[in-house]
Amino acid sequence: MNFVAEIKVMPLKELLDPQGKAVLGGLANLGIKSITDVRIGKHIQLNLEAASIEEARIIAGEAAKKLLANPVMEEFTILISEPAN
Amino acid sequence: MNFVAEIKVMPLKELLDPQGKAVLGGLANLGIKSITDVRIGKHIQLNLEAASIEEARIIAGEAAKKLLANPVMEEFTILISEPAN
Repeated sequence: MNFVAEIKVMPLKELLDPQGKAVLGGLANLGIKSITDVRIGKHIQLNLEAASIEEARIIAGEAAKKLLANPVMEEFTILISEPAN
Repeated sequence: MNFVAEIKVMPLKELLDPQGKAVLGGLANLGIKSITDVRIGKHIQLNLEAASIEEARIIAGEAAKKLLANPVMEEFTILISEPAN
């Protein structure tokens, strides 16, 4: 079956996010003052073949751990969607 | 009230995603063969002050249109979470 895995990779809460701080400054310069904090991470969408949703979750977790997220600086969460067909 | 807006910015479906293709090749080299497609975008988390969830959605949309997403190459979706306090 085909599954879609959405992996959200965000900088750890304990760490400063310089990219987010830069965007926060840019938003203030554009006149959008009501935004108080910005954090920027990656969003990765995987299409994968698996026998079950559990297997899909394991494959996505392996991909995230081995290649997509850097555990020293980032945390990830995985959301698996229903089979597309 | 404080709201959290999660903005997912992804490359348009019609466009090639070279970063995703590179990651797909990397995953295959690592032995993860069951992943058939990868697309990579940005995930942006905004903390913002607004009077209502509708206003929070408008502010987040303005930020996405003015600074966070490039409409020529990217599409975005916004998810607003319940007030944090």
